[in-house]
Amino acid sequence: MREVCIVGVGMSKWGEVWRQSLRCLHTEAALNAIKNAGVDHLDSMYVGCMTSGLFVGQEHLASLLTDYMGMPGLPATRVESACASGGLAVRSAFIEVAAGFSDIVMASGVEKMTDCSGDDATTALAAAADQEYEVFHGATFPGLYAMMAHAHMEKHGTTREMLSAVAVKNHHNGSMNPDAQYPFKVTRERVESSVMVANPLRILDCSPITDGAAAVIVTTVDIAKKLGKPYIKILGSGIGTDMIQLAQRADMTTIKAATIAADGAFKMAGKTIKDMQFAEVHDCFTIAEIAVAESIGKYKPGQAGPAFLAGESALDGAFPINSSGGLKSKGHPVGATGVAQVVEIYKQLTGQAEKGRQIPNSPKIGMAQNMGGSGGSSVVHIMEVA
Amino acid sequence: MREVCIVGVGMSKWGEVWRQSLRCLHTEAALNAIKNAGVDHLDSMYVGCMTSGLFVGQEHLASLLTDYMGMPGLPATRVESACASGGLAVRSAFIEVAAGFSDIVMASGVEKMTDCSGDDATTALAAAADQEYEVFHGATFPGLYAMMAHAHMEKHGTTREMLSAVAVKNHHNGSMNPDAQYPFKVTRERVESSVMVANPLRILDCSPITDGAAAVIVTTVDIAKKLGKPYIKILGSGIGTDMIQLAQRADMTTIKAATIAADGAFKMAGKTIKDMQFAEVHDCFTIAEIAVAESIGKYKPGQAGPAFLAGESALDGAFPINSSGGLKSKGHPVGATGVAQVVEIYKQLTGQAEKGRQIPNSPKIGMAQNMGGSGGSSVVHIMEVA
Repeated sequence: MREVCIVGVGMSKWGEVWRQSLRCLHTEAALNAIKNAGVDHLDSMYVGCMTSGLFVGQEHLASLLTDYMGMPGLPATRVESACASGGLAVRSAFIEVAAGFSDIVMASGVEKMTDCSGDDATTALAAAADQEYEVFHGATFPGLYAMMAHAHMEKHGTTREMLSAVAVKNHHNGSMNPDAQYPFKVTRERVESSVMVANPLRILDCSPITDGAAAVIVTTVDIAKKLGKPYIKILGSGIGTDMIQLAQRADMTTIKAATIAADGAFKMAGKTIKDMQFAEVHDCFTIAEIAVAESIGKYKPGQAGPAFLAGESALDGAFPINSSGGLKSKGHPVGATGVAQVVEIYKQLTGQAEKGRQIPNSPKIGMAQNMGGSGGSSVVHIMEVA
Repeated sequence: MREVCIVGVGMSKWGEVWRQSLRCLHTEAALNAIKNAGVDHLDSMYVGCMTSGLFVGQEHLASLLTDYMGMPGLPATRVESACASGGLAVRSAFIEVAAGFSDIVMASGVEKMTDCSGDDATTALAAAADQEYEVFHGATFPGLYAMMAHAHMEKHGTTREMLSAVAVKNHHNGSMNPDAQYPFKVTRERVESSVMVANPLRILDCSPITDGAAAVIVTTVDIAKKLGKPYIKILGSGIGTDMIQLAQRADMTTIKAATIAADGAFKMAGKTIKDMQFAEVHDCFTIAEIAVAESIGKYKPGQAGPAFLAGESALDGAFPINSSGGLKSKGHPVGATGVAQVVEIYKQLTGQAEKGRQIPNSPKIGMAQNMGGSGGSSVVHIMEVA
């Protein structure tokens, strides 16, 4: 296998973007990434998108998006694994370049979520859960993660204050991210007095509904060197699945798919969690950041919450998590999220994080963990700067 | 790159399968393929599905389907390129095995289309066209292909009789396929007196709405030899896209994406169209079989229709096309179709085609051409028996 790296990144504006449709958002991010990398062509493209069918009635993104990028004919594949679709696009591009099938591949992600009503968005997102055994009976994602939170509190003594600490920290980081949907700080009091969505999760425990796209250019180290742009190596890629129904799992306080994906990525990279200096993780709800930090092996079960309270995951902490602001503050256009995590790792490793968001002491290695549904799938990447 | 082959295949029953949901159909085909190949595990899975979101409100198939196969944890990726999703799953599995990332990978496809009304199915399928510039203005797929048929008739003198010849031949072949949805023969008169859908296309020019799944096991030649089962090599894989809107293309009588995909597959295989002995092509409408046969270079523009009338594409003709019955008779569960085409190539090359459907003189090499939308994407594979 060839050495693979990321040599350029691009984002669209994230938020409620009324003036842009799915194709426009994607084109903006894609052209930004192409310009950033300085490449003069692509060999193929992988786009992650969860459910453009339910959100905007549009499938067949391989054809639509290459066309609107002005590149009809370009080999293109849309991949989907619910909210892990973006990470999956990065993984697919990585495999294609590593294998020598293609030299320059774009991995992108997009979701246009605000063109339908809030109720409809909840219904569309619910397609990531088991339609017959969960959704039909009334389960939505806030409800499923609320059950995970209750279980975590019951089993490990996780507290309301620990959940709040995740929101406060991520909004602090996001306030310095020019691409973030909600770039404002929140206090513990504001989180805990925000409207209840599904007990114990309040609105400020939940990631928002977002329109947005992100893209990265994946290529070989040799080509990156010729381009003369900053690049980071992809050392490892891991993927895992788990039972789609929360009720079927032996333990709903841990995310087994994330454990499998992280183990796979570490094995390929020849690294362990101890080698990691920071991470972007999938904080679709505050409880998810806690559960994932434990599932990838950074903390023992029940230890992530107390560590977060002690500030370990802050920008200047021992192991910064979600320096981008995470899904919580940056936004969560579901298909784009996994790609945007890699964009943040690229910025941090190449010293390009904006507005004081840069992690101190120039980190050299980090990881991105992306997740689908209530943890039914996960994709993890380990990246290092040369 | 390693030598890659297909060592086992499986199908579910195709048709209006009221008693089985999407997950059941897929599990049936998957377990049949695993049994047929004699493998004791999988390393990963790629599933092609166009729009389970719009058909049955279910995305996140990587998690759902591995779970229902009894293999939670298995790395899995859902790929989508409208009706070319199945071919794309085969291509993705091919890349992963060729690259050495995995040794035994399942490529599968599934679509459950009859759980919604006929109108809703037409709307769901329309997500493969341009939602903003085609669908919003009333275009449906029968309408788009009807325009292609009119253009082909006008430019090349293609006749009603030539379209009918495709339907008659494919139903003849499908009548011998135990998996086919409509395994009955039709006459030219019956085709031409069937109800009009979109002039000149009548109902017997159109592929049906189908529930079904198909799966193949992709592995290395070394492993296939150890398994002791019949196998066929994948010599080449090609993929292409084109503008999604029919109106934007310079010529709507040819399928440029199919030309690009075929050229790519031939180049990788070191073969030309002249080396091919038979093909499965994407006859979603009768006109498509004619346009594709020309686009992949088998016939010059305008020459496929007359050749078909002369019997060249029949089972005992010079170049049999759609020995399976094609989408027309076998059915068209959109995400599964591209995989089922490869199932047929496998059966023909290993001498296992049922009920007198076997192509005479034991063909050694054949191709499968799968297509999305009105030709906005295409995937082609070249396969050879050892």
